[in-house]
Amino acid sequence: MPARNLNQLSACEIAHGVAAGAFTAEAVTRACLERIEERDKHIKAWAFLDPQLALAQARAIDAKVSKGPLAGVSVGIKDIIATHDMPTDMGSPIYRNNRTAADASSVALARGADAVILGKTVTCEFAGLTPNVTRNPHDLDRTPGGSSSGSAAAVADGMVALAYGTQTGGSVLRPASFCGVVGYKPTYNLICRDGIKFAAESRDTIGLFARSVEDVDLIASVLTGRPRVAQRETPPKIGLCRTHLWDHARPEAQHAIENAVERLEPAGAVVRDVSLPESFSALAEARTIVNPFERARSMAHEWNANRPLISEGLSRQIEEGLTIPYARYIASLQRMQNCRAQIPAIFGDADILLTPCVTGEAPKGLTSTGDTRFQEFWTALHVPAITLPTHKGPNGLPIGIQLIGRLYEDETLLAAALWVSQVLAAC
Amino acid sequence: MPARNLNQLSACEIAHGVAAGAFTAEAVTRACLERIEERDKHIKAWAFLDPQLALAQARAIDAKVSKGPLAGVSVGIKDIIATHDMPTDMGSPIYRNNRTAADASSVALARGADAVILGKTVTCEFAGLTPNVTRNPHDLDRTPGGSSSGSAAAVADGMVALAYGTQTGGSVLRPASFCGVVGYKPTYNLICRDGIKFAAESRDTIGLFARSVEDVDLIASVLTGRPRVAQRETPPKIGLCRTHLWDHARPEAQHAIENAVERLEPAGAVVRDVSLPESFSALAEARTIVNPFERARSMAHEWNANRPLISEGLSRQIEEGLTIPYARYIASLQRMQNCRAQIPAIFGDADILLTPCVTGEAPKGLTSTGDTRFQEFWTALHVPAITLPTHKGPNGLPIGIQLIGRLYEDETLLAAALWVSQVLAAC
Repeated sequence: MPARNLNQLSACEIAHGVAAGAFTAEAVTRACLERIEERDKHIKAWAFLDPQLALAQARAIDAKVSKGPLAGVSVGIKDIIATHDMPTDMGSPIYRNNRTAADASSVALARGADAVILGKTVTCEFAGLTPNVTRNPHDLDRTPGGSSSGSAAAVADGMVALAYGTQTGGSVLRPASFCGVVGYKPTYNLICRDGIKFAAESRDTIGLFARSVEDVDLIASVLTGRPRVAQRETPPKIGLCRTHLWDHARPEAQHAIENAVERLEPAGAVVRDVSLPESFSALAEARTIVNPFERARSMAHEWNANRPLISEGLSRQIEEGLTIPYARYIASLQRMQNCRAQIPAIFGDADILLTPCVTGEAPKGLTSTGDTRFQEFWTALHVPAITLPTHKGPNGLPIGIQLIGRLYEDETLLAAALWVSQVLAAC
Repeated sequence: MPARNLNQLSACEIAHGVAAGAFTAEAVTRACLERIEERDKHIKAWAFLDPQLALAQARAIDAKVSKGPLAGVSVGIKDIIATHDMPTDMGSPIYRNNRTAADASSVALARGADAVILGKTVTCEFAGLTPNVTRNPHDLDRTPGGSSSGSAAAVADGMVALAYGTQTGGSVLRPASFCGVVGYKPTYNLICRDGIKFAAESRDTIGLFARSVEDVDLIASVLTGRPRVAQRETPPKIGLCRTHLWDHARPEAQHAIENAVERLEPAGAVVRDVSLPESFSALAEARTIVNPFERARSMAHEWNANRPLISEGLSRQIEEGLTIPYARYIASLQRMQNCRAQIPAIFGDADILLTPCVTGEAPKGLTSTGDTRFQEFWTALHVPAITLPTHKGPNGLPIGIQLIGRLYEDETLLAAALWVSQVLAAC
């Protein structure tokens, strides 16, 4: 096996190596910057990058005697998340070169753990559905998914070990699946959202990209104040949840799930089918009622002050949101609350659910970021979700599976994801 | 009855008068500014005020042919809520003269309805417990309550008709009760929190101050996209909920509740006692576990960059939050979630609950903003709450009662509050 460049190391390897003096944070940062220099003219994952600023951070970390748990790990920050020393453009001309006084708390926590905030990654306009310039590293003619497009592509392409995204519908798990990396959306509100621009506040969640479950666990532990998860001593109990959307999954996405079961059961996992009550079809209302209603409110300033600079698609969503009756919005929230209350019964004794993440491979073209349905379903429930890059489709492109945990049981989900990823990698 | 000055009019009267051409927005704004000029040297409710900027807004509204539902109504904005044309200092030297690119969405929505954003009101440091300079308009030697100190005092003193606050524990309802105004904390997340600084994100809620329920309903309808509430045709069913904290209420606070029942029943309200399960005592953990844990994360940037400028009290809370184990935090969240699930059964057929708002009158001195327990109990449940200034204590100072609604049933709460306020005013 050829020696990997430092930019290809995992976050755990980097932090360990920098702490042990095996290599410097500066060397890791240079390797990441070189990879970006070489590749980003094609991928276009970065909205802002100042190599000197990144290297200065790295040198400051190298000068420290005692180093934090993310020592020298480069992190890409989705460009709707505030950084005190870099602009936050939000994928919109309204905020070109927009400077903020403070870091978002999630960024500050990573800095406090000695991460290098490498730069800002490309986002769809205000973390919505209007595509931006980023391309899929596996096939430049395909979407990387969105809205956290740059973060997924940058991690997949070895430009950084870690990146931040946000998920309102499927903006972390879909691009992670399309780009072949791990994507994790924690329980709603578990990572503090201070300093991000809201899309639909009742479901916006900060999520994370990495190339392994261990790396996702490392950064999430810093951001949530949680100890690292331990290896499971016994195989998990898994509920196989095809959902009522199953027929929308293409054969390759269905195969990924069924093949995962075929390989997990022999390793000891207990898998049983889990079905959802009919009432769960109401979760699709997130897209058509709750998201536009809340979007219209969260964009009130831009709608007042900069309306001509908002894209046609987003303008239409805001206009739609302004016409949805309040009573209809509240009824949707209540139906979703009722679904959430049924989650414990649906899980039964299962530790996690296994369910499709996407309808298939990343679609051709850059005019759409793909189908949100398999991701947004779970976002509306506020439960934690993770995708693992376990399969390939007919064009050799990645297809992730999705694992779901109970509300607040992110530790159980991550420990089970670690077990699943190890079993599926070993087959 | 002497003619009131324009600054003493209700928001509904102002909006109606300006729309009808009875007086101008500029005249209303001048009256508010004059009141502030006369009184604020004693009250100290304002953190930022630029009379020319306020008057320019008013003149722009006067020049419009078609006017919005808040036409010419002056609004005070708590100084942790962003305004694109005024600084947002957050009650901290860290953010002295801090400018933001955008309005918070709640501010932008009020501007879109033709309100005059008069200025920024004094907040406790980062909406916490460290008192700021504001004094109680009813007795300058007493606290106005906090953390939305300036907003409550400004509305009470006739400086503005409306003001914004935020409530994490009791930061809207307590100052409203101490200052003798109406204070409303909607259902969690109902008013978009884009552009505010978080204290403890899992409970921070934007709330509103006014001198009447009608006025609170007017501004809340703009911010939430809800139609105005209608008068109830029948008296409400009321659950009298003393809570396990009842013995902490001083005789005057207990009397307010019992006297309210004595006057509401003859008017037709059906009142029955409601008791809470023992498990609800866990809600007090909000203060000791959840708030410090989340505060330590939301303040990560300031903790990294400006630690010496954080007050001793807040520093202690952050340090405490950093030592609380994750498992303890999650267990608290789960216990609160379990309490929330019991709310429908606790209400039974009641439309609203009636419960103490405060332990008594505003305490003497400015070193504490008062006891948070009767307010924070309900904040942790995410349910909507309103206080009405219905009673006086032994020193002639205001004591509010508190009414509680079910999650998302803010309309039912406000309609019942309207009925209650009319009955109690008429006695």
